[in-house]
Amino acid sequence: MGIWFTEQDGDGLRVSFKVRDVLFSGKSEFQKVEVIESVDFGKILLLDGLVMCTEMDEFVYHEMISHVSVLAHGGQVSKVLVIGGGDGGTVRELLKHQTITEIVLCEIDGLVISTAKKYFPKLAGGLEDERVTVRTEDGVDFLKRQPDSSFDLIIVDSTDPIGPGEVLFSKEFYAQVSRVVGSGVMVCQSESPWYEGKMLKQIQENVGGVFDQTLSYVAAIPTYPRGYWSFTMASHRNLKTSAPDPEIFAQLEPLHYLNREMFSACFALPNFYRRKLGLS
Amino acid sequence: MGIWFTEQDGDGLRVSFKVRDVLFSGKSEFQKVEVIESVDFGKILLLDGLVMCTEMDEFVYHEMISHVSVLAHGGQVSKVLVIGGGDGGTVRELLKHQTITEIVLCEIDGLVISTAKKYFPKLAGGLEDERVTVRTEDGVDFLKRQPDSSFDLIIVDSTDPIGPGEVLFSKEFYAQVSRVVGSGVMVCQSESPWYEGKMLKQIQENVGGVFDQTLSYVAAIPTYPRGYWSFTMASHRNLKTSAPDPEIFAQLEPLHYLNREMFSACFALPNFYRRKLGLS
Repeated sequence: MGIWFTEQDGDGLRVSFKVRDVLFSGKSEFQKVEVIESVDFGKILLLDGLVMCTEMDEFVYHEMISHVSVLAHGGQVSKVLVIGGGDGGTVRELLKHQTITEIVLCEIDGLVISTAKKYFPKLAGGLEDERVTVRTEDGVDFLKRQPDSSFDLIIVDSTDPIGPGEVLFSKEFYAQVSRVVGSGVMVCQSESPWYEGKMLKQIQENVGGVFDQTLSYVAAIPTYPRGYWSFTMASHRNLKTSAPDPEIFAQLEPLHYLNREMFSACFALPNFYRRKLGLS
Repeated sequence: MGIWFTEQDGDGLRVSFKVRDVLFSGKSEFQKVEVIESVDFGKILLLDGLVMCTEMDEFVYHEMISHVSVLAHGGQVSKVLVIGGGDGGTVRELLKHQTITEIVLCEIDGLVISTAKKYFPKLAGGLEDERVTVRTEDGVDFLKRQPDSSFDLIIVDSTDPIGPGEVLFSKEFYAQVSRVVGSGVMVCQSESPWYEGKMLKQIQENVGGVFDQTLSYVAAIPTYPRGYWSFTMASHRNLKTSAPDPEIFAQLEPLHYLNREMFSACFALPNFYRRKLGLS
């Protein structure tokens, strides 16, 4: 039956991908970094044995974490900080916005960046763009040194709240994000709506504790556990959640997931998730 | 590591559920029918080794295949035919509508009905309601005998287009559905947007070939392969896709997935799926 890579989710669910080849396996001081060539999903990037992205569906995550927040900002987004996101997919999408003149990517693990550059050139290609500065350091330390209100948008493109990503879900971290983003917008990945309510509410509360507005949205990502993922956006400004400018949208093509209707639709949350978040 | 049930999707993906116990295993003239008690998803109903529903997330499929079509009808839905759906979950949801006075469930396999009644009382309970008539026969034959325009809504709650469900995806079948539903609405489950485009387009074309209007919508269902599912609705009338009546919604509680915002949002389709359907 060949070789399979298996990711276990909780006690009772496993998702397995048939492997054509193991292309890379390395270890940094932070985590294990691996690349497999799968039969159905193209190349897959694994960190500590968890699927970070696959060539087949990475577009969903990267379009949704980047464009939704730029559009919801509603004003001019010029300067963006990405914390994590060493694969480069988020930066690739951000570069489609003509207003964005400066992107700082702060990824703690240089091995993620070099692996992405070698094995995922379609994701990491944008990291060489002249508008992009790549810093290989701890996002928390970097953030502390930044002046107030020095970015229009901060994207926390992190791993799960275990291991090196854990600190990126803390209250103290979001307080720094709030200070540095000022009247801009911040967005983070916030796990699957199908996960345990306590964790989801905790993320929501940690973010909501320092921002005036907090808003979750969702996307269908087949290679993440349970196929459904959430993002949490926060700001001190009013977030725009409908009728995005058609001219901005035209700039972003090609898009494989997001369109104007999907932009408005992603903010609709099913009842079971609303209840977990304490929204109804 | 215990016992696991594994469903394979295509060549390269497997989803496995940890099994606490195998509660039932039987075989009808149509298919294998099994019930397992899983560790994370409650009881699971399997037909020919494929997950039909789990106690944990069956509410998504059943709310979405029933309420969306009743609400999109826009008029008075009194008489409903469900083809397939022997587990009873779709009927349970339909019974929440006060306007619905008669439901005929036509399920080819009596073993599915008796198994659901025994192991899934929360799904099958509604089959005993006085408004419901259960017929254990081939839906295609039943449909041929019905007069023109004899139902307001026909729900094709079928298995995949292989095995006993295959005929329920044919042009000839939809022509009969169109005749019997008249100016009403029909809806069918139409597989995952992540599946091969040829099959998705074929379903869309077979339905669209006989109705004036065809409309797809989507839902997040974690225990179906790739976690994202589509439904296709069709009619000779204009389908209503926004601003559902709050009073009707109030009748339907408790709902665990659908709400007024999700109703409008479910019709927004991601670009990759729109392209597969030939919509853009």
